[in-house]
Amino acid sequence: MSASHRFSRRIPAGDTLHRRVCDICGFIDYENPRIVVGAVVRQGERILLCRRAIEPRRGYWTLPAGFMEQNETAEEGARREAREEACANIRITGLLAVYSIPRISQVQLIHIAELEGGFAPGPESLEVRLFAWEDIPWDELAFPSVHWALHHRRAVWESTACVPFVNPQGMTGDTFPPP
Amino acid sequence: MSASHRFSRRIPAGDTLHRRVCDICGFIDYENPRIVVGAVVRQGERILLCRRAIEPRRGYWTLPAGFMEQNETAEEGARREAREEACANIRITGLLAVYSIPRISQVQLIHIAELEGGFAPGPESLEVRLFAWEDIPWDELAFPSVHWALHHRRAVWESTACVPFVNPQGMTGDTFPPP
Repeated sequence: MSASHRFSRRIPAGDTLHRRVCDICGFIDYENPRIVVGAVVRQGERILLCRRAIEPRRGYWTLPAGFMEQNETAEEGARREAREEACANIRITGLLAVYSIPRISQVQLIHIAELEGGFAPGPESLEVRLFAWEDIPWDELAFPSVHWALHHRRAVWESTACVPFVNPQGMTGDTFPPP
Repeated sequence: MSASHRFSRRIPAGDTLHRRVCDICGFIDYENPRIVVGAVVRQGERILLCRRAIEPRRGYWTLPAGFMEQNETAEEGARREAREEACANIRITGLLAVYSIPRISQVQLIHIAELEGGFAPGPESLEVRLFAWEDIPWDELAFPSVHWALHHRRAVWESTACVPFVNPQGMTGDTFPPP
């Protein structure tokens, strides 16, 4: 598609919300919440984390996760992100959590996975490491939802019969839980 | 934002996939999978369905569901859709299912809900009705995922301890399950 647009914000006929509408051709640029797909990846008793090489939160630790692409399933996306960010093959065994972060219009689908083989930093990671629970750098986590996902994974460490979780009660993903 | 764009499809620097990129200013129009939020709404032993007044699948029966909007949670979106399509207030008690439909780049987040009060067709519905299980119009369901969600809801009718479900094994949402 090739088109020339000049956008302004108004409510299209039959709609109830403001949208970006092209003044020339009427094209409506619907903005939609975006989906993040990722995984808490385990090897034995340890969890795989990536130190971010990109903003936001460069230098902080996160799960292998990123924006879901067109024409893939959530699981395919989570496997792709593990390959891209941690050069890791993972085996997904279930869905751990579904988090809504309304301020930034994001839904996160976090899976449960086992590491298969080795790992190394991809272009968006400074460093990739396996952490035992007591070594997790809690003060250097990139996002509140990383904190949630690690605790939710631990809550079902032995049995994953009753997942996924949703947001912790009253939390919208803008702040970290109290220590 | 007001801008004039002329798009062509190419791979931006540092990316791996084709994107719509503006030849004039370099703006990248990322296309992302879209999120559908909805609910299987129960009143006693019956389930609420809406007959679609709009394409695709006009005249067929569906759950109250639709595209998630910016700055809402998945649950808020599901409640909003029930109000819009069935003029119904619902009380969400959990997340039933997460379905990926990669062909149309959709993720569906289907909740478990109880009807609170009355209902009536909204502008996008021809008719809204409560159906006992044996009266559900199986041959007139709008989408395969409506079929999945009804069966998944029934599988946890008494106890919803172990939800949500994901896609039935090997299904991508393009075809209905065999009868």
